[in-house]
Amino acid sequence: MNHLQHWGETLRLLVELAGTAAFALSGVLEGARKRLDAVGIFVVGFLAAFGGGTLRDLLLDQRPFFWVQHVEMLWAVLALCLLAMSFMRRHHFEATLRGIAIPDALGLGLFTATGVHQALVMDMPALVAVLMGLITGVFGGVLRDIVCNQIPATFSDHQPYAVCAFVGGWVYAGAWQLGAPGWLALLACVGITAGLRWLALWRNWRLPAWQT
Amino acid sequence: MNHLQHWGETLRLLVELAGTAAFALSGVLEGARKRLDAVGIFVVGFLAAFGGGTLRDLLLDQRPFFWVQHVEMLWAVLALCLLAMSFMRRHHFEATLRGIAIPDALGLGLFTATGVHQALVMDMPALVAVLMGLITGVFGGVLRDIVCNQIPATFSDHQPYAVCAFVGGWVYAGAWQLGAPGWLALLACVGITAGLRWLALWRNWRLPAWQT
Amino acid sequence: MNHLQHWGETLRLLVELAGTAAFALSGVLEGARKRLDAVGIFVVGFLAAFGGGTLRDLLLDQRPFFWVQHVEMLWAVLALCLLAMSFMRRHHFEATLRGIAIPDALGLGLFTATGVHQALVMDMPALVAVLMGLITGVFGGVLRDIVCNQIPATFSDHQPYAVCAFVGGWVYAGAWQLGAPGWLALLACVGITAGLRWLALWRNWRLPAWQT
Repeated sequence: MNHLQHWGETLRLLVELAGTAAFALSGVLEGARKRLDAVGIFVVGFLAAFGGGTLRDLLLDQRPFFWVQHVEMLWAVLALCLLAMSFMRRHHFEATLRGIAIPDALGLGLFTATGVHQALVMDMPALVAVLMGLITGVFGGVLRDIVCNQIPATFSDHQPYAVCAFVGGWVYAGAWQLGAPGWLALLACVGITAGLRWLALWRNWRLPAWQT
Repeated sequence: MNHLQHWGETLRLLVELAGTAAFALSGVLEGARKRLDAVGIFVVGFLAAFGGGTLRDLLLDQRPFFWVQHVEMLWAVLALCLLAMSFMRRHHFEATLRGIAIPDALGLGLFTATGVHQALVMDMPALVAVLMGLITGVFGGVLRDIVCNQIPATFSDHQPYAVCAFVGGWVYAGAWQLGAPGWLALLACVGITAGLRWLALWRNWRLPAWQT
Repeated sequence: MNHLQHWGETLRLLVELAGTAAFALSGVLEGARKRLDAVGIFVVGFLAAFGGGTLRDLLLDQRPFFWVQHVEMLWAVLALCLLAMSFMRRHHFEATLRGIAIPDALGLGLFTATGVHQALVMDMPALVAVLMGLITGVFGGVLRDIVCNQIPATFSDHQPYAVCAFVGGWVYAGAWQLGAPGWLALLACVGITAGLRWLALWRNWRLPAWQT
């Protein structure tokens, strides 16, 4: 049993690392596309990776931030940005988010679950908790796009992204209400969020558009 | 007397609901104009409705937020956004802020009064209190416009809007200093803010422009 | 000795005033270039002057803000914005940041030192402290540019600016670790940050660019 738990913890950590790396890379790619300099790319990568969780902690009035408690994650993102930039300079590669779709979707699910969990622990109403999950998962990318001076892609590319996190967040809140064990709620939230996201990408689902 | 007080409370609630709805609608209209998807429109509507008060509470370090304490307002704005979107899809109506000018001006006045009041209760200096009123009334729209990737309309359309809230805020702070009863300060602030705003719209007042 | 200390304090205050004025002016100039109205220009001037420190205090969960404790600074920035605007209207002068490069660089150094200091006092890790210094020095301008709907100049003009603050911040953190007296750490941080900034402007140093 202890053995299993240990494996679960390791898996969770791996998903967290992969998700954070994918979020940071989405910032690096966006910054490179907008021709930011090295400082700008690091800031945008940092915002994409930690901005959502930081905004959630600000709103919930929680300290210390994730990246203060685990300052090694800051160093890791800093190193990742430097690596990605030196790689981009040499290989002239097409800036694309497609290559990081899998870890990005996993990260979206995990971050959403973390946000919902923290709000539920603080006895927030379910809708607020789900919004906190959404903010954790999605607002890193929103802040990234605001700094890059464009309408947040999540709100304008008409691909389901935040919607997947919204559904996954309700799954987590529901499992919590039903008294399910933590690992099950987490697994269900990540599975459904990431699964919906992959389905949406694969089947090319579109959110409704307005004829104004 | 109790009867009167009850009517006052009901009136205040009605203005608050009308103002919040007008602010949320301004977000929905802006989001539709920018061709956001359903998620984006909800976020922008939410930001326009609750962003100003949330920013004020963050700055004043106050919890819980209005929309955590009254989670039914969150549901109401969510429903309003859905209604507005389905209406817009069917009626192809010209997105305009003109139709919501009256509740919007009332909301501006009420939100400003609320912000000034909260800061005064915390013994903030008068100028800080007036700024908090301004932030409560105006920064929902500012955040809406930042997410929609445009210069905040309040700062660039050269129509008096924040200025009305600024004057109204000083009226509230002055009435407070003079020891006037709360309902009178509130009434004066809302009346003067909304009155100035209507006058500005009616007489087409313009703020000074620069020849740079 | 007391005499010397008094002079040191006065000097620090002068640098602080000059830096704040330079930051506020950078906001006024940016707002004028974007043809904001008077309200917008004041908000952008205020954001440029106080935004970085306010964001740092929000993140570190510290109150009261600098501009709440020293409300006379708010009045001063308000007066400065009014003065600058009336001057601009009469003199039709070329909006430029070049004229404020010297106080701006001094302010960058001082604000960075203040941010690093506050985080170190709270026992934050060195990297977090340096980031807090960076945020204090640089994010006023970032918020100014976000409200003015452009990519933050610090991240996209490929001139070293944040990098100077980053180096200066490490100098402060290093001096602190070595147990150097506060005035020496402050002097070293301001000197190196401002010195690097001037060198960068004078020698026209460029940050690396990407060929995407």
